Amino acid sequence: MFKALEKAAPGTRRPLADVLDALPWNEQGLLPAIAQQHDTGEVLMMAWMNREALEETLRTGRVCYFSRSRGKLWRKGESSGQVQQLVEMRLDCDGDTLLARVDQTGPACHTGRRSCFYHRLEGEVMEVISAPEVDPATLYSR
Amino acid sequence: MFKALEKAAPGTRRPLADVLDALPWNEQGLLPAIAQQHDTGEVLMMAWMNREALEETLRTGRVCYFSRSRGKLWRKGESSGQVQQLVEMRLDCDGDTLLARVDQTGPACHTGRRSCFYHRLEGEVMEVISAPEVDPATLYSR
Repeated sequence: MFKALEKAAPGTRRPLADVLDALPWNEQGLLPAIAQQHDTGEVLMMAWMNREALEETLRTGRVCYFSRSRGKLWRKGESSGQVQQLVEMRLDCDGDTLLARVDQTGPACHTGRRSCFYHRLEGEVMEVISAPEVDPATLYSR
Repeated sequence: MFKALEKAAPGTRRPLADVLDALPWNEQGLLPAIAQQHDTGEVLMMAWMNREALEETLRTGRVCYFSRSRGKLWRKGESSGQVQQLVEMRLDCDGDTLLARVDQTGPACHTGRRSCFYHRLEGEVMEVISAPEVDPATLYSR
């Protein structure tokens, strides 16, 4: 399906059900999903979705991942309150990566930082470049 | 290493060599790498890096991935001319995803589009939302 759409003009459409059937889920049944704050463009995190997580996200407008460590659906913010409202879901050229443009409440990162990408690699060092905005103990103690 | 840095203050540093040894490469020796245009915030693509590709990228300032389909280093733009100059490399909280903030020459996508994320999922359809800026035949015929 994706090869055939490479030269397609804007506005070309395919039924979602056909797309979901055609997605190249990996051997664990997952696709990587990048979360980006829709207005600032900040890349917040990357996690994984299985088909059930993607369908729930599209249906409810609340972002749901699949937690590889816990082996189950992970409704972002269900324990921390730091939910992601879906603004737009996109798929890349070969259909193997999702980009969720979201409105993130508070920090996306479990450390209490807005974004998970707070280590900078430069020269011969890695440097921490942002501080937690919120004590994670307050996020997960509810 | 990454767990110990979760509460670290900005400016905390670790030697790059130790970081490279500690990275949780997957079973194929790879980490996902998101490429983002540094000034507009646009997410351009996602690809994969092995240790060699990451070291080359950091050393040369030109983004190099590992092509899973070709099984070798992929110096972005080597056949198309559409190079990515590295502006800043970041790593996420648990060290398993890279974010390359880049300056992209021309289209990042092999289809001739600026970004690979040109399919939008909404309601019961997937829709193509951007057109190629360049005929890919002209990119790969040099």
